[in-house]
Amino acid sequence: MSRLEGKVLVAQGGGPTHVINQSVVGVALEARKFTQVTAVYGAVHGVRGIVDENFVDLTRETTHNLEQVADTPSSGLLSTRDKPDEEYCARMFKVMQAHDIRYFFYVGGNDSSDTVRIVNEQAKEANYELRAIHIPKTIDNDLMENDHCPGFGSAARYVAQAFMGVNLDNRALKGVYIGVIMGRHAGFLTAASALARKYVDDGPHLVYVPERAFDTEKFLADVDRIYSKHGLCTIAVSEGISDKDHTPMITKLMGVEERDAHGNVQLSGTGALGDLLSQTIKDGLSIKRVRSDTYGYLQRAFIGCRSDRDANEAREVGEKAVQFAMWDNVDGSVVIRRPVLDYGVDYELVPISLVAGKTRHMPDEFINAEGNGVTRDFHAYCRPLLGSGLPEPHRLRAPMVPKILHK
Amino acid sequence: MSRLEGKVLVAQGGGPTHVINQSVVGVALEARKFTQVTAVYGAVHGVRGIVDENFVDLTRETTHNLEQVADTPSSGLLSTRDKPDEEYCARMFKVMQAHDIRYFFYVGGNDSSDTVRIVNEQAKEANYELRAIHIPKTIDNDLMENDHCPGFGSAARYVAQAFMGVNLDNRALKGVYIGVIMGRHAGFLTAASALARKYVDDGPHLVYVPERAFDTEKFLADVDRIYSKHGLCTIAVSEGISDKDHTPMITKLMGVEERDAHGNVQLSGTGALGDLLSQTIKDGLSIKRVRSDTYGYLQRAFIGCRSDRDANEAREVGEKAVQFAMWDNVDGSVVIRRPVLDYGVDYELVPISLVAGKTRHMPDEFINAEGNGVTRDFHAYCRPLLGSGLPEPHRLRAPMVPKILHK
Repeated sequence: MSRLEGKVLVAQGGGPTHVINQSVVGVALEARKFTQVTAVYGAVHGVRGIVDENFVDLTRETTHNLEQVADTPSSGLLSTRDKPDEEYCARMFKVMQAHDIRYFFYVGGNDSSDTVRIVNEQAKEANYELRAIHIPKTIDNDLMENDHCPGFGSAARYVAQAFMGVNLDNRALKGVYIGVIMGRHAGFLTAASALARKYVDDGPHLVYVPERAFDTEKFLADVDRIYSKHGLCTIAVSEGISDKDHTPMITKLMGVEERDAHGNVQLSGTGALGDLLSQTIKDGLSIKRVRSDTYGYLQRAFIGCRSDRDANEAREVGEKAVQFAMWDNVDGSVVIRRPVLDYGVDYELVPISLVAGKTRHMPDEFINAEGNGVTRDFHAYCRPLLGSGLPEPHRLRAPMVPKILHK
Repeated sequence: MSRLEGKVLVAQGGGPTHVINQSVVGVALEARKFTQVTAVYGAVHGVRGIVDENFVDLTRETTHNLEQVADTPSSGLLSTRDKPDEEYCARMFKVMQAHDIRYFFYVGGNDSSDTVRIVNEQAKEANYELRAIHIPKTIDNDLMENDHCPGFGSAARYVAQAFMGVNLDNRALKGVYIGVIMGRHAGFLTAASALARKYVDDGPHLVYVPERAFDTEKFLADVDRIYSKHGLCTIAVSEGISDKDHTPMITKLMGVEERDAHGNVQLSGTGALGDLLSQTIKDGLSIKRVRSDTYGYLQRAFIGCRSDRDANEAREVGEKAVQFAMWDNVDGSVVIRRPVLDYGVDYELVPISLVAGKTRHMPDEFINAEGNGVTRDFHAYCRPLLGSGLPEPHRLRAPMVPKILHK
């Protein structure tokens, strides 16, 4: 057991999720039990709050309010898009030393795990004893070593529920519908739209993920086939789809690209990709009623739609991170395994280098041969993650009345 | 009491809502109790199903499945955008005569109520005894004579919950956020975003409705003021906002307008307005992080988000329509009144001419003097309609830690 006395620091990085606060609260409540922990601090706005020395004292927060915040989506400690380099990490490290931080927990995706890796290396070089642990979080579900990531299940549930509604709506007033879903390099969240299917003719009829090159001609042929058959077509597409030359489809529309601090092209917060694809269908297939929605912030922050399983696991990875640090006195990244066939999870701590800065993609067995849909394997993988009490659509089964005038 | 023997026909028109099936099921279950009703038919795809003679026999549907469909969003009988003229109505009337339809219930908005008016007139001219009653439905909340319309409360709840999440998300990673909400002429649904506010600095900070002329310069000044104060700005805007010359803002962007069967410009199913406004802010205020989401189908069909009060009232207007026809032997449009100060409703039947083809707008006392927000009166009006168990966001209240290095 670690007898290292000092403070615990917890921070959140990157895009918010429905359940990221669960992990912070898991850290705070568990850490407050250990006598060697002199205080539990939260960094405001992630690593930015560390360099700016903006901390809140979570040992002076009530358990009730921590539980209330845990049940609230988005990053309660606020977040940042800063991606620290060595020099930035050195400044963070200096602040941590000044405050006698001995345990650092960073809840985030692959960029955040890389930050943990650098801070950890600097601590070792400085002979400063520090436990630095990465806690997984991402709606993209793209962290290596994990069966799935906290935050994905709830976002996937939102996407599935959205498509259940879209199926009903697009059936009532028929047309082509495109839903544009977050996912720069990994298609898991877009694929989750397939969980909306109940009736054999339910959509999404076509699912396009970044793991397969997007071909406009093939796309038009796909839509034409479905539309000819059903008189409607419902499509799920990842914001990050690219052509065979790896050019994002959105850059084909936008003259000027907007890039974020990480040098990534702006994909979210605009309806451009959906509108481009709509126009492609209108032009190429002469279908008039084509609509697109871009789910934007709603898929990761809509209050009142979350997976209970996801929330529980997000809590557990926070708790486990503290337990690994305190009882085992080790560093690394907490990962979720699925050791049982039906459903169950184990948590492990793996070396941070296995996760840091890497991206996991949809495995081939989750994508159909045509590259425009998902497999039964994906359904089996994804369904438990959506949690309990998923809503279900119902149709009338009343028989048709024999015609009198139009016999 | 009406002793007129014959069939009941129920149909749904226009855009689906979360609770429109409640009204159909209210009609079906209530009508099945009356011995003079020889069968209850449902028209498939609204008035289109009547001219095409596509009916399902709801007397051969189980009560359990009717209840399941009632709990499902969107139009279970499917819908149509057809807006019948005299000739179209004459064809409908002919089919109704052939099937001995003596009671016609049409669930829809102001266009649908106009259809009921025409059919009713033709029946009178032909000396064919028919009870034709309009049942209110619209997420736009724009039917005359009604305190509010079934379908609005659930859509309003979706918008409020969406903005609760958006507030949390935009606070975690600060920027300007624009949510584009349905509403061609009436701003009620956009205004409902204000119900998301809990903390004093919560958004939406600015709300723009079609009832007030949109001025781009004023808009930029509004955003600049909020952004300078909070470092972020959250905006709700109706898809139907127009400038002082009544030109829709969206047509200022789109060269070619798409018009639907009613001659209306296409406002939904595209992210164009949000992207236009985003670009206006980027250009005019040099703010980099500007995002927009267009809520599209989600606000009227997202499964798993509805107001229990709205669902109950949607059921009641269906039931009441049948009761007015059977017990009082009269025609008209069912309307919802709010006779008590806190909350409670009464149902009345008013002459169809008071509702048909007319549009109700937000009253002045619901819009603030600056034309960029809503009043306390609107909050008091809208809150009960969202129903029970509304989620609530929570923030950390932990105290800041004194700085050591940056003193």
